Amino acid sequence: MPLTLIIGNKNYSSWSMRAALVLELTEEPYTEVRIPMYQQTSRARLLSHSPTGKVPVLLTEEGPVWDSLAIVEYLAETCGDCHLWPRGEYARAVARSLCAEMHSGFAALRSHLPMDLRRRPRLLALPLPATVQEDIGRICALWADCRQRFGVDGPFLFGYAGIADAFYAPVAARLRSYAVSLPEPAAAYVETIYRWPAFQRWYQAALQETETIE
Amino acid sequence: MPLTLIIGNKNYSSWSMRAALVLELTEEPYTEVRIPMYQQTSRARLLSHSPTGKVPVLLTEEGPVWDSLAIVEYLAETCGDCHLWPRGEYARAVARSLCAEMHSGFAALRSHLPMDLRRRPRLLALPLPATVQEDIGRICALWADCRQRFGVDGPFLFGYAGIADAFYAPVAARLRSYAVSLPEPAAAYVETIYRWPAFQRWYQAALQETETIE
Repeated sequence: MPLTLIIGNKNYSSWSMRAALVLELTEEPYTEVRIPMYQQTSRARLLSHSPTGKVPVLLTEEGPVWDSLAIVEYLAETCGDCHLWPRGEYARAVARSLCAEMHSGFAALRSHLPMDLRRRPRLLALPLPATVQEDIGRICALWADCRQRFGVDGPFLFGYAGIADAFYAPVAARLRSYAVSLPEPAAAYVETIYRWPAFQRWYQAALQETETIE
Repeated sequence: MPLTLIIGNKNYSSWSMRAALVLELTEEPYTEVRIPMYQQTSRARLLSHSPTGKVPVLLTEEGPVWDSLAIVEYLAETCGDCHLWPRGEYARAVARSLCAEMHSGFAALRSHLPMDLRRRPRLLALPLPATVQEDIGRICALWADCRQRFGVDGPFLFGYAGIADAFYAPVAARLRSYAVSLPEPAAAYVETIYRWPAFQRWYQAALQETETIE
């Protein structure tokens, strides 16, 4: 049975995007089910698929796998030849550290600069709070460090596109949408994400959506 | 080189406890370095070991692994015979879903009922907010479901003690410390955690600590 990925709006749901980009990396066929968010029936529809009522959820033959991190670990295990994590043991540990940091952190960035792929790149009316600046500084340092230490084989964080890139792709999108001024390595990495075909497919689909948060 | 685990206070640092319990499961020798939290020098001392300035951090021969989830995945990989995750592919995916849900969720429970192992079990002065009740309801449902579906070989969530138990041990401690009334399967699981020798060692050490949050 092919896998089914339940996602939210492509424009706004950054966690859906992360899981979908990794699923695209496996090159396996799958069914995508999009449940528009911000509607009265959204949660009820989601609860029929997943115990948490949140996206993304991966439906497997044996049952649901919920939460993006568990989904990508499942895909990394079941697609052994895909090398969704870096090949080196320590590089893999660092990639997982990055993803875990994203998974539970950067609260200021996430609340002040929500993902909105359709947003025409422009600054917010007010200056960014110091907490957001700190998050951005930390992320730029992470990216530069990974690119330098592990990124010799290609333009992604660990060379080839993998889970860590999927986890930081929505951050790249935010930095562009909110016209954040970036040091050169980070600006180049944002460009790498926008040139990634899987990201482009998701992005173009988001531009076609009509649901809005209002 | 044996591993070094950097932890915070045993009484308060639930994320340190999670990593330490998993490290205990490996039965490998390791060095524990405890950096008391809530002191002016804590963050500077932590930053000398870890890029995030947070606990826990695992120091390996090749460099630091930060964040509890990345640490336990590293241990699960490097200790292949330990079976820190369940053996079945789908059981493993569910265990990871549970851990990921804990890693980024249950915000109400975590902020209203902070871990405090030395607390004499008693109710809070005010009734628990509805958001905390919802978190507790969800956790009790998760535990009952796992015990029923995957827990045939022993009293832990997936039978034998593993990463998912380490991730929910601090929740068990909170439920006891704050004297939360529980349905039978959840009450039995809290008892299982308190009888777990690795948990008992950490708990007894916490009782000896003297630092307090003012």
